[in-house]
Amino acid sequence: MRFLSDNTASAAPEILAALSEVNQGQAIAYGNDPWTLRLDEVLSSFFATEVKAFAVATGTAANSLSLATLSPPWGAVYAHESAHICVDECGAPQFFSGGAQLMYLRGEHGKVTPGDLAAAIDFHPADVHTVQPAVVCLTQATEFGTTYRPAEIQAISSLAHERGLTVHMDGARFANALTFLGCHPGDVTWRAGVDVLSFGATKNGALAAEAVVFFDRKLVRDFEFRRKRAGHLLSKSRYVSAQLLAYVESGLWRRNATRANSLAQKLGRVAGRSLLHPVESNEVFIHLGEARKTQLRAEGFEFYDWGAKDSGEARFVVSWDQDEKHVLALADSLERLQLA
Amino acid sequence: MRFLSDNTASAAPEILAALSEVNQGQAIAYGNDPWTLRLDEVLSSFFATEVKAFAVATGTAANSLSLATLSPPWGAVYAHESAHICVDECGAPQFFSGGAQLMYLRGEHGKVTPGDLAAAIDFHPADVHTVQPAVVCLTQATEFGTTYRPAEIQAISSLAHERGLTVHMDGARFANALTFLGCHPGDVTWRAGVDVLSFGATKNGALAAEAVVFFDRKLVRDFEFRRKRAGHLLSKSRYVSAQLLAYVESGLWRRNATRANSLAQKLGRVAGRSLLHPVESNEVFIHLGEARKTQLRAEGFEFYDWGAKDSGEARFVVSWDQDEKHVLALADSLERLQLA
Amino acid sequence: MRFLSDNTASAAPEILAALSEVNQGQAIAYGNDPWTLRLDEVLSSFFATEVKAFAVATGTAANSLSLATLSPPWGAVYAHESAHICVDECGAPQFFSGGAQLMYLRGEHGKVTPGDLAAAIDFHPADVHTVQPAVVCLTQATEFGTTYRPAEIQAISSLAHERGLTVHMDGARFANALTFLGCHPGDVTWRAGVDVLSFGATKNGALAAEAVVFFDRKLVRDFEFRRKRAGHLLSKSRYVSAQLLAYVESGLWRRNATRANSLAQKLGRVAGRSLLHPVESNEVFIHLGEARKTQLRAEGFEFYDWGAKDSGEARFVVSWDQDEKHVLALADSLERLQLA
Amino acid sequence: MRFLSDNTASAAPEILAALSEVNQGQAIAYGNDPWTLRLDEVLSSFFATEVKAFAVATGTAANSLSLATLSPPWGAVYAHESAHICVDECGAPQFFSGGAQLMYLRGEHGKVTPGDLAAAIDFHPADVHTVQPAVVCLTQATEFGTTYRPAEIQAISSLAHERGLTVHMDGARFANALTFLGCHPGDVTWRAGVDVLSFGATKNGALAAEAVVFFDRKLVRDFEFRRKRAGHLLSKSRYVSAQLLAYVESGLWRRNATRANSLAQKLGRVAGRSLLHPVESNEVFIHLGEARKTQLRAEGFEFYDWGAKDSGEARFVVSWDQDEKHVLALADSLERLQLA
Repeated sequence: MRFLSDNTASAAPEILAALSEVNQGQAIAYGNDPWTLRLDEVLSSFFATEVKAFAVATGTAANSLSLATLSPPWGAVYAHESAHICVDECGAPQFFSGGAQLMYLRGEHGKVTPGDLAAAIDFHPADVHTVQPAVVCLTQATEFGTTYRPAEIQAISSLAHERGLTVHMDGARFANALTFLGCHPGDVTWRAGVDVLSFGATKNGALAAEAVVFFDRKLVRDFEFRRKRAGHLLSKSRYVSAQLLAYVESGLWRRNATRANSLAQKLGRVAGRSLLHPVESNEVFIHLGEARKTQLRAEGFEFYDWGAKDSGEARFVVSWDQDEKHVLALADSLERLQLA
Repeated sequence: MRFLSDNTASAAPEILAALSEVNQGQAIAYGNDPWTLRLDEVLSSFFATEVKAFAVATGTAANSLSLATLSPPWGAVYAHESAHICVDECGAPQFFSGGAQLMYLRGEHGKVTPGDLAAAIDFHPADVHTVQPAVVCLTQATEFGTTYRPAEIQAISSLAHERGLTVHMDGARFANALTFLGCHPGDVTWRAGVDVLSFGATKNGALAAEAVVFFDRKLVRDFEFRRKRAGHLLSKSRYVSAQLLAYVESGLWRRNATRANSLAQKLGRVAGRSLLHPVESNEVFIHLGEARKTQLRAEGFEFYDWGAKDSGEARFVVSWDQDEKHVLALADSLERLQLA
Repeated sequence: MRFLSDNTASAAPEILAALSEVNQGQAIAYGNDPWTLRLDEVLSSFFATEVKAFAVATGTAANSLSLATLSPPWGAVYAHESAHICVDECGAPQFFSGGAQLMYLRGEHGKVTPGDLAAAIDFHPADVHTVQPAVVCLTQATEFGTTYRPAEIQAISSLAHERGLTVHMDGARFANALTFLGCHPGDVTWRAGVDVLSFGATKNGALAAEAVVFFDRKLVRDFEFRRKRAGHLLSKSRYVSAQLLAYVESGLWRRNATRANSLAQKLGRVAGRSLLHPVESNEVFIHLGEARKTQLRAEGFEFYDWGAKDSGEARFVVSWDQDEKHVLALADSLERLQLA
Repeated sequence: MRFLSDNTASAAPEILAALSEVNQGQAIAYGNDPWTLRLDEVLSSFFATEVKAFAVATGTAANSLSLATLSPPWGAVYAHESAHICVDECGAPQFFSGGAQLMYLRGEHGKVTPGDLAAAIDFHPADVHTVQPAVVCLTQATEFGTTYRPAEIQAISSLAHERGLTVHMDGARFANALTFLGCHPGDVTWRAGVDVLSFGATKNGALAAEAVVFFDRKLVRDFEFRRKRAGHLLSKSRYVSAQLLAYVESGLWRRNATRANSLAQKLGRVAGRSLLHPVESNEVFIHLGEARKTQLRAEGFEFYDWGAKDSGEARFVVSWDQDEKHVLALADSLERLQLA
């Protein structure tokens, strides 16, 4: 019974069906196929504003290509210290950007606050000797499963724009955040000041598909050269685009996220006061203590330790295809463990 | 009737079937799934030697990650001036390696010769002031559809190794070359001195799947860090590995290549003396003259101009899924055009 | 009356004399001149161990070339958040290394502690997804004018080595630290576990000369290629080497540092409890309050604001060539200002 | 008797005098000293147009910083295959630019021709898959001691600008070229379409001083960040600026170049038909044959072999401080050797 990561999930049947559907005869390569050519339109409609979108196969590519486009090699990119770009991409943003420095921010529940961001920008006055504040990157939902409210995003974006930074959102779990918040996709992105979004689909049911969405199309600049020379322009682009189209147009993003979120809520409820962060997407962080972890593992549950060594913290991720019986079993076990 | 590129081809049914097959429940992410874990074994058996193999989604990634692993940032990488790494990857090898210099070699029919390679290495004696000769990269089949014979590869490898270079093979059309040559996969790779191979499957029927195959496993070094930080470690790795397994184990590589090669031969035969290069895989280069090109396009054939502007040269690529009727129609038309 | 920076200082007469001395006729270029060839020997004798040393013209070059040699592109380099590499080099270590991530540590008086370092290394377990802990960089004297004692360095080095990191020391003000500590140069470097030192001379009387000193000569690796391709191998190397030789052999390092340190002590004494950091080299940090700063500036003293905006903090740097009268005048004024 | 390189030359007395002159008390660091602040004005007057100039310590830095400013990481930089950037900088332009590809052009006597440049640009049509033609770099004087006439430069610049490329000139021996041509500095630079010049002084009498001169000031862009993070912004900038000022204002550039050129002419005259390239600066290339080389070396002459191994070619460089007696002795010896 695996609660390790939504990356362990399978691809949704709708996604495989979409692959089959576009697998008819020849199609112009490298993005000039009819499906890829529809991406902008479909995502513009989804976000209710004109966007420019690019498909890639991994979230690391989406994030790093975005950041490299937004930050000069001598730029500073501000992000929460728990962010995927900080701890899970082996320095990809630094590689793609040619050396940008990630500035680690703290903040409760995985969230950057305007105050911390301002303090970090002000930490050292920028002149030719320093790296140049360039981008703030928000993760939605955060790595702790929490979500930024529109007003929170707006506050950070306003500050960022005032100070000459652009705003990137890592939306690897964007659908989960959106579903939880119940708001319009535009409300947590361009209407709240986000300039570029890594729009993730892989974790939530796609096979391998992410889109980089530019809300400010002037920022696209040299994105296409960057994608090509990073090996992220797929020759048979139709197959990644088809996933994104199916994901958005069929409402798959919402169905899958709704299901996963709601199962995660079940776990959150039994965790009670041992819950480390509010459950606002499909991840649940619980202070279990090492003994209870051992117990759960003995019962067949797989999950990751979290936080500092021996902190007793555990992360449970509910995937879109999680077996409900496993979730119920876990909820039962958690209940039996008599958490605080 | 498209003869533009084998990148316009669809994915083979065997590949889609393989995706469905592995799409069962959860699987550990990032390469620890049962299918990815079989890659080394299956490719070792294919090549009849112990290899270490890594799956990626694009040929540019396979080539660039290979070259970055083999060449220091101040290295020189020797390749035919027509090579994909020289003219079709927007500087990807330079990006991945941190600045390696591609050294363009000439040579008939897209092939590097030992003499040209030696002259290029000797062009300027290497000391601390120069880039350091590091790698020679051979394309098999070449960008002109020709293939290196085992002895040709051996001659280049011997020279390269003597001079302290390693040998990389860009095998985007490896199956087509192998099928044409009718030899064992080992004969044109490790037995002939190739150190690392970009083993392509995408052009020949996969959806998006290439393997980097290390014959000399000591050379793997930091490959995994490089792949990860380039965004080329797929989270749901099973789907790319499944393609490679199906491609190799089911003999798909051979079936598809055999078909494409044999259709290309038909075109080669009617081209007669206007043929620019021997047809040794699935590409056919013909000197048509501009008038005949216009004529063919009017008849509904799509293909790329080749060579210098107004050279009158044309490239026809036969894909694995090329409609035989289109090939026969093209052969007919070529015949009617009364080539020299 | 300038107390802005020791970079505003002139070059010592001994340094100009050394330039004249070596300015006799032709000398082999690029480091094969007799003076450069003596560097290893002279610095080996200075440090009482066999070292390999390389001359460059700037401290940023010395630091960045060292770190790029010690850290892979996906490495993490730990340093105090006030370190020159963190705030004054415009991302140079990131550029030279191809993307290493600087990890900012806090710590009183500009010093890294073993506890903070351990916590930072442990912050996230290292696997293929993360940047790899690679180097810890200590600044001696620190950016707050304090110095690491041998035992402090040893404690950090032991931890670092245990965890697979190497130890770099940014010794832009090494002579000032050494003079203050009154210990042997080896005691705060190789005997305490330092692997590579940026041995600064520019701030303390040279015109433009720094040495990268490898105590562990195996670590030299590809340093020479890195220096050359960064444009830091000087063609007429004798002129930078001559500075270093004069600096070390004539005892200039000690004379200049002793003078500057002792003048700084005078300032430290009058600062009393307003002193922000112990004066252990040639820098003095005082909490003045904004009003007193204005007053001092009106009296003709130039110095930098320090710390957060409106923090009331000020930095005074005493250069090797500081006019004693200016120091006494400043001491008088500080006294009159009745600091806490 | 050394004819190895003008890098073996000493620094001119005027240069050392200039260092002493500015070595008076404190001066603001990092380029805000009175001498550095005069650079633009002095070089604007020299070139008779408003320029923006930046001082650095090495020619490799000047070239690489220029090219990195002019070319994107995915750019192609066209240069003669003998150019310093191609064979003597260990990949520095690739490093600074983040991966630009040097495109080697052939051409008699070390010169690029418009025809070859056009052919190289046209070699492969530029689209998102290819590196993007960005810069052509001309060496003045060339590595074979020849010089481009104003009309030759103009022809290349016109072509380059038409095709969207900028024009960089590597002027490591600019003074020698200018003196030979007897024209105004503007005639071979901005009036002939050059956008950026590496203005060399080191080889011709400075200690370590080069200027990057922007004729098109819009192109400066992020140059200052690039210089800083490459470690090429000198803290005590006055010492490099003082060299440049003395070099230009005192006419040192012309005195030294005139002397070296005229001594080189003596050698050129005795070489007769064995001369490989016209002598148009301070370098002389002679086909001697291996036996005569051995003979000359036995007589105490030092010089480099040139061209292919055993080609019998030799290079003699006359430095600004070359002993006239050595030149006369070499001329005598060459005469005695009865060259063809």
